Amino acid sequence: MNQTISDLTTRRSVRAYSDRMPSKADLETICQAGLYAATGMGTQSPIILAVTNKALRDRLSRLNAQVMNTDSDPFYGAPVVLTVLVDTDTAVTPVEDGSLMMGNMLNAAHALGLSSCWINRAREVFASDEGKAILKDLGIEGNYLGIGNCIVGYAQGPEPQARPRKENRIHWVE
Amino acid sequence: MNQTISDLTTRRSVRAYSDRMPSKADLETICQAGLYAATGMGTQSPIILAVTNKALRDRLSRLNAQVMNTDSDPFYGAPVVLTVLVDTDTAVTPVEDGSLMMGNMLNAAHALGLSSCWINRAREVFASDEGKAILKDLGIEGNYLGIGNCIVGYAQGPEPQARPRKENRIHWVE
Repeated sequence: MNQTISDLTTRRSVRAYSDRMPSKADLETICQAGLYAATGMGTQSPIILAVTNKALRDRLSRLNAQVMNTDSDPFYGAPVVLTVLVDTDTAVTPVEDGSLMMGNMLNAAHALGLSSCWINRAREVFASDEGKAILKDLGIEGNYLGIGNCIVGYAQGPEPQARPRKENRIHWVE
Repeated sequence: MNQTISDLTTRRSVRAYSDRMPSKADLETICQAGLYAATGMGTQSPIILAVTNKALRDRLSRLNAQVMNTDSDPFYGAPVVLTVLVDTDTAVTPVEDGSLMMGNMLNAAHALGLSSCWINRAREVFASDEGKAILKDLGIEGNYLGIGNCIVGYAQGPEPQARPRKENRIHWVE
């Protein structure tokens, strides 16, 4: 089977990670795949906050958990968080553009033998004062909307099997 | 290079098509790749209206053009339109889910040697009375939000080169 088709259909969302850090080369490759996702009108408005620093990873985890009023780790122990944000001053279709970037990154991680999951609440975290302060401290200026957190790492245990696809999701008119 | 990574980074949006029809097998593969995209809370809420029928393809083109007040073909001559819609009664993250499905389909088309482009205005078309009637006639009941139209076909002429990626889109914190 075509390797790409196989990878697109076998990628799964993983919710348990070891603390083993992926290589910087693999993370760079994942981010590059994200940069080449299509954007509405070609604005290239999404950016990536690529976090392997444990202090910031843990801070983002805490902020994310606060949105849910929990104190568990929403990143499931994954050591890497690649947060996609979109510059809403330039994007025509911000959520769609950021989601396509997320998709490319999730698929690229799988192609490299890494596990991943889309974790929500980037929107709320980076709309908060503390989230905005994190961006400002990094020199990221502008009006950025958080789209998603692509957590990346090595699965702890086997990856889950895909649940069966629901029926009647493709409607052909030939 | 890893074939999947190569495909994720070399896929381009194509805006000129011949009228050559892709094989049903390839279109099935593209749709299957879409079905396996992740969805928030695993709801599998996105569906695909897979149109190779010329009358309906042309009708969707006309409706789409009306949204823009033009009479050109927004599908650039492509013979196939795979429209992604999301059931908003079940989806937790409808635009994100539908966009991930679109991304898998765009990438799968490229992996099979086909060209593709995300065409907007599915939202407006399927919020209109005529769009709703199309769904109803096909037995698609419920509250569906149009996310995007994945046009598919064979490029007329060479695919465009990628424009250079803008700088400073990846912010590392290591």
